[in-house]
Amino acid sequence: MNKITNTIELIKPLDEKAMAEARIRQDMLTKPPGSLGRLEELSIQLAGIQGKPVPQIRNKVIFTMAGDHGVVAEKIGNWPQDVTAQMVHNFLSGGAGINVIARQVDASVMVVDMGVAKHLTASPGLVSRKVDAGTQNMAHGPAMTDKQAIKAIETGIEIISAETEKGLDIAGTGDMGIGNTTASAAIGAAITGRPVAEVTGRGTGLSDEQLAHKIDVINRTLAVNKPDPGNPLDVLAKVGGFEIGGLAGVILGAAANRIPVVIDGFVSGAAALIATALSPAVKNYLIAGHLSAESGHRFLLEYLGLKPLLDLGMRLGEGTGAALGIFLADVSVKILAEMDTFAEAGVSEGDEDVR
Amino acid sequence: MNKITNTIELIKPLDEKAMAEARIRQDMLTKPPGSLGRLEELSIQLAGIQGKPVPQIRNKVIFTMAGDHGVVAEKIGNWPQDVTAQMVHNFLSGGAGINVIARQVDASVMVVDMGVAKHLTASPGLVSRKVDAGTQNMAHGPAMTDKQAIKAIETGIEIISAETEKGLDIAGTGDMGIGNTTASAAIGAAITGRPVAEVTGRGTGLSDEQLAHKIDVINRTLAVNKPDPGNPLDVLAKVGGFEIGGLAGVILGAAANRIPVVIDGFVSGAAALIATALSPAVKNYLIAGHLSAESGHRFLLEYLGLKPLLDLGMRLGEGTGAALGIFLADVSVKILAEMDTFAEAGVSEGDEDVR
Repeated sequence: MNKITNTIELIKPLDEKAMAEARIRQDMLTKPPGSLGRLEELSIQLAGIQGKPVPQIRNKVIFTMAGDHGVVAEKIGNWPQDVTAQMVHNFLSGGAGINVIARQVDASVMVVDMGVAKHLTASPGLVSRKVDAGTQNMAHGPAMTDKQAIKAIETGIEIISAETEKGLDIAGTGDMGIGNTTASAAIGAAITGRPVAEVTGRGTGLSDEQLAHKIDVINRTLAVNKPDPGNPLDVLAKVGGFEIGGLAGVILGAAANRIPVVIDGFVSGAAALIATALSPAVKNYLIAGHLSAESGHRFLLEYLGLKPLLDLGMRLGEGTGAALGIFLADVSVKILAEMDTFAEAGVSEGDEDVR
Repeated sequence: MNKITNTIELIKPLDEKAMAEARIRQDMLTKPPGSLGRLEELSIQLAGIQGKPVPQIRNKVIFTMAGDHGVVAEKIGNWPQDVTAQMVHNFLSGGAGINVIARQVDASVMVVDMGVAKHLTASPGLVSRKVDAGTQNMAHGPAMTDKQAIKAIETGIEIISAETEKGLDIAGTGDMGIGNTTASAAIGAAITGRPVAEVTGRGTGLSDEQLAHKIDVINRTLAVNKPDPGNPLDVLAKVGGFEIGGLAGVILGAAANRIPVVIDGFVSGAAALIATALSPAVKNYLIAGHLSAESGHRFLLEYLGLKPLLDLGMRLGEGTGAALGIFLADVSVKILAEMDTFAEAGVSEGDEDVR
């Protein structure tokens, strides 16, 4: 628990001076002020996070964390639990969606076993930090112990801190875990106070009947466990998942190390709810990569006060939406660094009074 | 005129067989079917355009066309006309927004003088195809002659056809021209039939009063010229611009050569209105890169039946939104080409009946 408390204490406000300088530079670049819209805002946020008027993005890592969920016993999805482990192998061999998109944005993918049910054989690319072989069935009691919840978050902090020491300029979050939209919806309902039906979506593709069953299971889960909305560790322990706790740790550790963190979709959003409930100062370090097609995601983002960069109807997870957000963050920084100013280019400016 | 007619005759429907095969492959890849949303749809459209089940995007060119507008005499903006020529120099020296973003997406920028008022000295990167030294003031009569309108479109066709012969996999459109949102709004009103006030925006940043004046000028322009909505060449000649005509030619030529073309914002949208009015079959070849912050853009896209990929509050033009769209097109194709199938990766699939 000390590690979590210490990490939270390290999270500081954004660097206002760097942001002001970035804003001044944006207005000197050869374009009508504001004409690059959210790319300008993003570059200024990144300046404030990194504490540099012209931020740099060279080393990009997507932390894709995997874990299994005991609640699959309630038949809340269509995909067998084995798929979690199979997809971890797919990540390691480079054939998954996140691998392809990460290559396109020049990011590496760190694959972490936070709690996959199956034993995964050691592999050069695999970071083995299994807290347990999957969570317990939360429909009948807590998904994990309080100790495991703390361990999961601490693991995420350790992983990103180690990466920061090697040189890290931007992080992305990603998830894999059959059943984890169910845990994420439970977290979403517990923390935001929204009705379960509002924050629960079709995951990998449920029928109306199956969706009604999933909502029913989540309602029962919340009734059985009574997670305390004011205590994010209690929420994580009772209705969370190991990969979700790990990602909450990655987010906290990113903010503590002044690393911008692009959050992916619904499951990463649940992790962000846990992280920001532990430390509201984290919010300034977050960039919402995209709006997921998982229907509850918009409510999580609204609660977090984040506006997604992209809305492409994606709902794959793995960090795919985060990777695309990292690309836009990189573009925003390159604009600040590489565009000429009016003076440099010898371009006349528009009338001052209307700019 | 023969060149335009011949080009239109070459525009064929999309290749349904290639699209069906791309769709089948998308559903075999290791992800819940449909979970990459618009990236999946985009890859299938690209398959249909290129006529290949797995389309390829290697050579990417953004055609950034520049022209001046006589209507600036009506004081419809805040930036001096010289800026058009100055920005062309900025494009050529690599310091403009489009240069930065094009580098990030590995695209080249072809800078074309379609009708800049100033004489531009020859430069290795500059394609000099000046139709005339700026248009006439359309508030008092036609912006150009019918012959010039045809010449502008033919020039765009010639430019993209030559590029296609060298090997071109995807095109983007971009514009530069002080005063060209005024011409574009006039085209938008003429072709879509919407009120001028609806399709007219603040360009590089007008006050309320200046916007009202701009709308008034456009209303007068339409009253004086009476462009025939059923005759896109008449619309281009009376209220268009040389760069807009050139881009309409690029779009027609792209479709004729089965090259996908990502259209940028408001001015490119006006060019797309001219091109699709000449040949509705062009629409299948268009990808809307983004929704511009220029307020009339949404109405142009609606009329074109296009859904923009991005909505980042950008309104710079130059091809910046098209370049970002090219990135997403590239990602969509890489997914189709590089992701493993369930069989290849040894991953179990979800229940067939609910997929």
